[in-house]
Amino acid sequence: MPHIKLDDKLPGIRGLFAFRPQTAMPMSELAEILLHTPGTLSMAERELIATYVSSQNDCFYCQSAHGAIAAIHLDGDEELVRQVKVDFEHAGISEKLKALLTIAGKVQKGGKNVTSEDVNRARQHGATDLEIHDTVLIAAAFCMYNRYVDGLATWAPQDAEVYRQRAGAVARDGYVKAMEAYVKSAQAGAGGQSY
Amino acid sequence: MPHIKLDDKLPGIRGLFAFRPQTAMPMSELAEILLHTPGTLSMAERELIATYVSSQNDCFYCQSAHGAIAAIHLDGDEELVRQVKVDFEHAGISEKLKALLTIAGKVQKGGKNVTSEDVNRARQHGATDLEIHDTVLIAAAFCMYNRYVDGLATWAPQDAEVYRQRAGAVARDGYVKAMEAYVKSAQAGAGGQSY
Repeated sequence: MPHIKLDDKLPGIRGLFAFRPQTAMPMSELAEILLHTPGTLSMAERELIATYVSSQNDCFYCQSAHGAIAAIHLDGDEELVRQVKVDFEHAGISEKLKALLTIAGKVQKGGKNVTSEDVNRARQHGATDLEIHDTVLIAAAFCMYNRYVDGLATWAPQDAEVYRQRAGAVARDGYVKAMEAYVKSAQAGAGGQSY
Repeated sequence: MPHIKLDDKLPGIRGLFAFRPQTAMPMSELAEILLHTPGTLSMAERELIATYVSSQNDCFYCQSAHGAIAAIHLDGDEELVRQVKVDFEHAGISEKLKALLTIAGKVQKGGKNVTSEDVNRARQHGATDLEIHDTVLIAAAFCMYNRYVDGLATWAPQDAEVYRQRAGAVARDGYVKAMEAYVKSAQAGAGGQSY
């Protein structure tokens, strides 16, 4: 049961966004810029970084939600998402992404763990300053989102199909539109199942 | 030396904000809402939570910057800020703030560490749902800011006076105005010392 009174139809971060729309906006805008705007890292790559960090933080809701979005950007390859979470060094991804995931994993444990060697490895595989910056910030931001979701003990659907169904709209329309839609729905007190 | 090329006159998060103004805006807006808008927790209390979490994350820049801002809101009581960082249970603060700092410290280690007992203790001392929510989100957000600052190996001034001098403008004008001022200054390529 959540530590505070939330709309019980909205799981994970969605219930928190509906509780506090003021902070929901910049948090969604940050996710939009990092994960959903055009960039030299693909949306699939960025969602895989978010999923991996959420997995390392043991946040079931976030790793399920972002894993499902990553799979959509990967034409439905849920097995690749699983491999990245379990053992990315042996997954079918680029050497550059492996190097960036290494940096993200260090950030998850604490910023000072990132070494010049980690950064040099990423550069040797073609990573730019902006890509290294965004990798660190995606990892850092998910250390926030994950703690927010679990620190207030929100509930998470256990059925993977729920996340698949939600992921389509987010992958298509982005984070700000998705957040606005369910904050509005919660404010209207819409009945029935809404996750 | 930072892991990416930053304006060498701007320490800590300021160099990162100048490097990536797009993400600087929602990150500053989030800090503004959590730390600088009117609320039932005083700005001093919220800055103390931010300072404590930054201290637990061993982020010298963030604990120095927010510790200096907290001290301004406490009429210059830097000793109280130090006590909160070292041993808040015996510091001269309210029982409610001690309970909220306990929650913040749990979030710093990982969201799942927060227990119903921790939350009940805060409620017994008068904490509301919104105050508990904001405490968790401040702690989670500083797990992001701290990792961002240290994950990219930004530099930090060692002289406490530098932080005191900067803190006045932020305590007065807030985070968005402060961020806009130095992003603009960096874009104009203003010479000389700017920290």
